[in-house]
Amino acid sequence: MAELVTVTDPDDPRLADYRDLRDVQLRRHLEAEHGLFLAEGEKVVRRAVEGGHAPRSFLMAPRWLDGLADVLATTGAPCYVVDEALAEQVTGFHVHRGALASLERRPLPGVADVLDGARSVLVLEDIVDHTNVGAVFRSGAALGFDAVLLSPRCADPLYRRAVKVGMGAVFALPWTRLPDWYDALPQLGAAGFTTVALTLADDAVDITDAVAGVDRLALVLGTEGHGLSERWQSAADRRAVIPMAAGIDSLNVAAASAVACYVAARR
Amino acid sequence: MAELVTVTDPDDPRLADYRDLRDVQLRRHLEAEHGLFLAEGEKVVRRAVEGGHAPRSFLMAPRWLDGLADVLATTGAPCYVVDEALAEQVTGFHVHRGALASLERRPLPGVADVLDGARSVLVLEDIVDHTNVGAVFRSGAALGFDAVLLSPRCADPLYRRAVKVGMGAVFALPWTRLPDWYDALPQLGAAGFTTVALTLADDAVDITDAVAGVDRLALVLGTEGHGLSERWQSAADRRAVIPMAAGIDSLNVAAASAVACYVAARR
Repeated sequence: MAELVTVTDPDDPRLADYRDLRDVQLRRHLEAEHGLFLAEGEKVVRRAVEGGHAPRSFLMAPRWLDGLADVLATTGAPCYVVDEALAEQVTGFHVHRGALASLERRPLPGVADVLDGARSVLVLEDIVDHTNVGAVFRSGAALGFDAVLLSPRCADPLYRRAVKVGMGAVFALPWTRLPDWYDALPQLGAAGFTTVALTLADDAVDITDAVAGVDRLALVLGTEGHGLSERWQSAADRRAVIPMAAGIDSLNVAAASAVACYVAARR
Repeated sequence: MAELVTVTDPDDPRLADYRDLRDVQLRRHLEAEHGLFLAEGEKVVRRAVEGGHAPRSFLMAPRWLDGLADVLATTGAPCYVVDEALAEQVTGFHVHRGALASLERRPLPGVADVLDGARSVLVLEDIVDHTNVGAVFRSGAALGFDAVLLSPRCADPLYRRAVKVGMGAVFALPWTRLPDWYDALPQLGAAGFTTVALTLADDAVDITDAVAGVDRLALVLGTEGHGLSERWQSAADRRAVIPMAAGIDSLNVAAASAVACYVAARR
């Protein structure tokens, strides 16, 4: 059972994991160096713990204790009980969903482990927006994908905002980071996957046709601004597009990935 | 040709339209009372003007003048030229995309005018998040929908953030606000539309089946948190769901609307 510890001093060093949550640079350093990440909201905190991440501590206002009592019962980590004004003072923002947890990251699995048994895999190249990374995880999990691979420069899916937007899908889908960017797609090919890149390239074919008959599929998505790199576009086995109305910009990456996952999962 | 006016005083009253852009409450009042809205970014400013909205003024740093020269040539509205620090001081945030315009709202068309000739219409009930409203407009425009109807309490699609996320799709799609909430769907039925509500209700059928064979379609979307009201769910001709993996939450409204538009446009 977590020990409940009432904290009234915003400078209490035990709250260090929860400081300045809106300062992305600071959080990146802090989380990497301490091997932690934050979960926010009752549902997401629960999923993080149930997903096997050991809690370092919890931070919440008293009114959230009951809802998470069963989760708190499973751990010896301390639960810092604070009022909402102090929570805001420490974190730097109004914690709408009340409950926060700091949890331990785990070593990332190898690519082969993540691919083992997977039939439909998402591969994200350099998506730098945490909101988009979270949205892609959520859509992938909801629409039938089995795993996610991230390029070396893709944003951290355990960053608080990505976890939150993804509603904890990052705990449901096996994922890891690709060690190599340049040959990532040929290596997926060698592992038995057909790589299909979503792109606006001239030779892209309708996504429905591109995935038809594919057994093991790696669906490759790039960032909103620049799309996929030339290297990944040319290295993919197939290039696919979501047919769109004339004169309209591309969909944003969250919408495009949802449609692409929906179509691909029904191949 | 717009008159270029260099402004160096952040309190210059001519900049009133651009003040405190992150203060949602203040902006709502200001924009409603003056009948204006803001467009942000070269592409969106261009689309707003080309969409027929008369500019009241422009505000931009010198480096954006060339890119918008052809747009500025079409109007007599003043263009306030400021440095980026002053722009930030006035608006309250760092204007990444540089160019801003204040434009006149136009009277909303009648529902019958918006429906005239439309085969696929989106109907949004009480979506209060401007980002989601913008995303739905963008997906609808890209994926083949003809018009959008908003419930009386749906967020303003001309709010700056909605316009920006929608990449100006609000200027491409005819839209208006429904005067009546309670009987909105029966009235669409009387106008010849089959109303299909996206919902997690128990009797919802696969969206593909729900739209099959429908000629004039009104696809009805609710908000992320609570979904559609009981009234609209029960008043719709059909209830539809996007099939999802077991144990996964619903998609967010932007992802769900993209998938639903994609499927519905291919009926």
